[in-house]
Amino acid sequence: MTNLTNLTPIALKNVNIEESFWSRYVELIRDTVIPYQWEVLNDRIPGVTPSHSIKNYRIASGLEQGEFQGMVFQDTDLAKWIEAVAYSIETKPDPELEKTVDGVIDIIEKVQQPDGYLNTYYTLKEPGKRWTNFRECHELYCAGHMIEAAVAYYEVTGKRKLLDIMCRFTDYIDSVIGPEPGKMKAYPGHQEIELALVKLYKVTGNEKYLKLSKYFIDERGKEPYYFDIEAKKRGNVLHYPEFAKFDRKYAQTHLPVRQQTTAEGHAVRAVYMYRAMADIAAETGDTELLEACRCIWNNIITKRMYITGSIGSTEFGESFTCDYDLPNDTNYSETCASIGLMLFAYRMLQIEAKSCYADIMEKVLYNSVISGISLEENSFFYVNPLEVWPEACEKNPSKHHVKTCRQKWFGVACCPPNITRTLASLGQYIYLRNNNEIFINLYVGSNAAFDFDGQLIQVKQQTSYPWGESIRISVIPQNSIDFTLALRIPTWCPKALVKVNGKEFDVCSNITEGYLKIKRFWNKGDIVELELSMPVMLMQSNPNVRANAGRVAIQRGPLVYCLEEIDNGRNLRAISIPEGIELTAEFDKDLLGGIMVIKGKAECIDDSTWTADELYRPLKNKTIPINIKAIPYCLWNNRKPGEMLVWIRYK
Amino acid sequence: MTNLTNLTPIALKNVNIEESFWSRYVELIRDTVIPYQWEVLNDRIPGVTPSHSIKNYRIASGLEQGEFQGMVFQDTDLAKWIEAVAYSIETKPDPELEKTVDGVIDIIEKVQQPDGYLNTYYTLKEPGKRWTNFRECHELYCAGHMIEAAVAYYEVTGKRKLLDIMCRFTDYIDSVIGPEPGKMKAYPGHQEIELALVKLYKVTGNEKYLKLSKYFIDERGKEPYYFDIEAKKRGNVLHYPEFAKFDRKYAQTHLPVRQQTTAEGHAVRAVYMYRAMADIAAETGDTELLEACRCIWNNIITKRMYITGSIGSTEFGESFTCDYDLPNDTNYSETCASIGLMLFAYRMLQIEAKSCYADIMEKVLYNSVISGISLEENSFFYVNPLEVWPEACEKNPSKHHVKTCRQKWFGVACCPPNITRTLASLGQYIYLRNNNEIFINLYVGSNAAFDFDGQLIQVKQQTSYPWGESIRISVIPQNSIDFTLALRIPTWCPKALVKVNGKEFDVCSNITEGYLKIKRFWNKGDIVELELSMPVMLMQSNPNVRANAGRVAIQRGPLVYCLEEIDNGRNLRAISIPEGIELTAEFDKDLLGGIMVIKGKAECIDDSTWTADELYRPLKNKTIPINIKAIPYCLWNNRKPGEMLVWIRYK
Repeated sequence: MTNLTNLTPIALKNVNIEESFWSRYVELIRDTVIPYQWEVLNDRIPGVTPSHSIKNYRIASGLEQGEFQGMVFQDTDLAKWIEAVAYSIETKPDPELEKTVDGVIDIIEKVQQPDGYLNTYYTLKEPGKRWTNFRECHELYCAGHMIEAAVAYYEVTGKRKLLDIMCRFTDYIDSVIGPEPGKMKAYPGHQEIELALVKLYKVTGNEKYLKLSKYFIDERGKEPYYFDIEAKKRGNVLHYPEFAKFDRKYAQTHLPVRQQTTAEGHAVRAVYMYRAMADIAAETGDTELLEACRCIWNNIITKRMYITGSIGSTEFGESFTCDYDLPNDTNYSETCASIGLMLFAYRMLQIEAKSCYADIMEKVLYNSVISGISLEENSFFYVNPLEVWPEACEKNPSKHHVKTCRQKWFGVACCPPNITRTLASLGQYIYLRNNNEIFINLYVGSNAAFDFDGQLIQVKQQTSYPWGESIRISVIPQNSIDFTLALRIPTWCPKALVKVNGKEFDVCSNITEGYLKIKRFWNKGDIVELELSMPVMLMQSNPNVRANAGRVAIQRGPLVYCLEEIDNGRNLRAISIPEGIELTAEFDKDLLGGIMVIKGKAECIDDSTWTADELYRPLKNKTIPINIKAIPYCLWNNRKPGEMLVWIRYK
Repeated sequence: MTNLTNLTPIALKNVNIEESFWSRYVELIRDTVIPYQWEVLNDRIPGVTPSHSIKNYRIASGLEQGEFQGMVFQDTDLAKWIEAVAYSIETKPDPELEKTVDGVIDIIEKVQQPDGYLNTYYTLKEPGKRWTNFRECHELYCAGHMIEAAVAYYEVTGKRKLLDIMCRFTDYIDSVIGPEPGKMKAYPGHQEIELALVKLYKVTGNEKYLKLSKYFIDERGKEPYYFDIEAKKRGNVLHYPEFAKFDRKYAQTHLPVRQQTTAEGHAVRAVYMYRAMADIAAETGDTELLEACRCIWNNIITKRMYITGSIGSTEFGESFTCDYDLPNDTNYSETCASIGLMLFAYRMLQIEAKSCYADIMEKVLYNSVISGISLEENSFFYVNPLEVWPEACEKNPSKHHVKTCRQKWFGVACCPPNITRTLASLGQYIYLRNNNEIFINLYVGSNAAFDFDGQLIQVKQQTSYPWGESIRISVIPQNSIDFTLALRIPTWCPKALVKVNGKEFDVCSNITEGYLKIKRFWNKGDIVELELSMPVMLMQSNPNVRANAGRVAIQRGPLVYCLEEIDNGRNLRAISIPEGIELTAEFDKDLLGGIMVIKGKAECIDDSTWTADELYRPLKNKTIPINIKAIPYCLWNNRKPGEMLVWIRYK
């Protein structure tokens, strides 16, 4: 097998995120969110929807009496938390926390059945019914998340117990599902195990796991339709009758995956699958599968993605809809889907070494991933709208899924632990490498160590990005060494200037696939200074995006901005940006811990010319000037609830 | 009891609609739709959702074997058809059709139970369970529609059979429900019987029916909550479990009706109830109830109504939502709700004799009632959006309720027969009268006869309204007579000119509550010439209507216009109307049988500057000129499917 990977990550422990925009999030996750989520997993936070997750494991292990509670996929709350802890202790060891995880792994071990099976729902609630409802009941999805946790925990601590548990479970899965005669021709309703199995393969070297992952990918969408076959066997009883109406696109089973060219159905399932397809393509040299990934990627990026990088245009099925259908106030844009898109982008970047993937990774991370978490609290958005009018969200049921405040937890709590594990592993996205190149994808104040055949190279970024335009990169090799430093020049950036040791470096003629390649002998103390100009930009959408016709979004650097009621008054739709508006970026050190705000003189409908009793009247188009102030979209709803708007009318 | 009615209708048979905009609809209903719907009621149209209505009656009467099919309210398909036939044969006798109705009334008689009860669902499907589920199972709603049919058929033909059947049924209802000890404290889940009972009272003179209607109105929304009481008795089993989530506003049971000040919940239920409230207020002199009607009316008209006169901002519960929440592409705007609003307006007009009610009646009739029916076919809209992008309607489930073509029939087929009965009785809305005044509410080519104490007065309107601005009214009294002719001067009209026998009549100083009152001795051959100027107007919404900020609608006379893809190309949102646009009205005799179109030079986003792969880019605001052509909204979708837009961007 040819491995198609061009670039590989470095270990998380070799990247230290320092004073930067991100420190606050990294600390929030480590010091507040991870401990909080442990309390939630143990149902110890009053007033918060209980997770039941630990309790289910304790009951299934015989440590407690009781009944299973929660969703069929409740086990994943714990799995994602363990994964997050693994990343967290990789960057900052915490023996106490590690002991807690070891303790819970002991419980998991007790839950595992003699044949390797592991799932608290089926063990407690429907013994004897396992593997009867792949479409809805998420046994493989749960397995996938626990495999990810096991791999992460093993890689960080070297402890094999959870890894062995999950290898035993996977071996058992492989013994009952697969192409061989007598095995079930099944695949998961909710993709996840596919990408987890590739991780398990990479850490164990056992090709059986890669083969099983590829089997799940290739079996999907084939005829006869497995989910019909199993439903017939069950007498067509559904676990979630309310989902009966979803068609085959919902779980991406409408076509064999290699024939899929557009992003369809449940957005999280979709992107988890695309990531796995890219994984398998990379590991096996499967260029046909890679081509399918490219095709779907293009469909998402050029037709079905919000400017914030979020995806999923409708609540129904939490799904993609069609090209250019991007409504701003009824969308789903699930935080988990953004994370999945980042995972897909990250893997495509490793294969193709093209900045277009890193550009999207940055867009998603800076906008729709961190919009999902409060700046200072344990509270989370599941749905990430681009326009909110709280009264309509409350009183128009078409918008009931749009919450106007971040929530403490959710009955279906996929997003909070997903953000946690993502931000806990942020370091891995910053750099990639190959034999003779170091790629900087994200500009984050950090210190990273690279080993080139035993030669250690330290790369240090100092920057106030995304507020500031300058990034100072110190390259500190053990000894002088010839290699290429590849710096992403973001697509949003109209002008990049680079100096190496104070001397200007020609950007234009040294760009390859969006990366500025600086190839030279590097000596201790070499300094690269990068200036990425960040003018305030008005962005517009392709005219086919009906929802955004005649509207603009404010962007500066990677950050998409929004208006909030607290800064601009109510009825944000009444505001319009005039042609030639001067917008200035201004650092407000007192706002939300110090952020760059954008200000300008705009226009607003003069509502004093209206009486309360007029609903329609002949046009009298009177506007008054208004000073507007925009803040980064990712930081909205950190003060008080109110209207929010990304796409502003343009006159 | 003081009767608060100021104005009363004249008999339908005394109004003859002549050569006019409406002739076509009147003939379509009489010659095509009524016969077609009889075939549908008999399940004889291949490919069309069967009604089951006649079959259920035949089975319940013992004429056929079989099982009840359809919804619990399927009986109303037949009831509304009988009512429509009654109006139709009042304006144009049809002995053959009358025989058909007599035949079906014989069947209905056989279905009636010895105690008077009449409902095919409970008789066939759940015998012994009657009156156990007022909230969902619509026995009183069905009774209401059949009472309306009975009253109409009796008034036209003098035949009492159906009237007697329904009196027997109502007497039975009155014996089991009411304030007296031992009776159920029930009221209908879906209002309708309340307004029907007032009709029954007026035709029979039996005050018991009025009292029962008032009981239903006043019992509604009281504590303890009857629908909970009955649910408990049923073991909380629901007939429609999918509706369990609707709150008490859904059926307007959240407050005693006299305390309700805003229009809430299911729009059809709401307006049927408001109409009944106005009926009861008028008949009983109940000024408190009238004040509640005024208050709710104002809330609808000034905060919750589309410019087309339609209501119901969301599909969920087919409901009102909140003030100013008027999304154009996800709304419900049910045809039946428009009809109900017209009924409410019509009754308020009779009480208050103010043109504001007739203005809305006209708006609703000319826009959102006839948008529900095809111009030449038996096909109907249930939902009346103000913006349609067919691909999104098909692929975004948030818009699945929005059909992009009129349908032949519906499983829940309330709208088609409702339009039929409304258009069949159109004549009644044109004129109202009292002892010494004749009110002209609608300008429709017609010939009407009024009896003033035995003196006959003929009023004849000749007009090409709403295309033309002139209305020529001939007043032909038997003998010279002193009375007032009151002409509605529509609010949309910036300038009205009136001549009486060629001599200008001062409009400004003779207007009372929106009606121009011409009081004089009228002689045979007197002519009133009315000129209502109809400039093409750009309309705007109150700035609180977020959905319409920066957008305008084109209106001329009572007609709201729209753009259709067939005339203006795809992507109608790309079009914007520039300041100072010249819009001209032009009669196109070849289009849709001859209609006034509106043309002008607008702007369109230049999509040639975009590549297919660009989804977002820095603003380059390039537009190109485009000739636009708008047609009346009510006539959209009479050529071929495509995009449609009412609210157009304004620059």
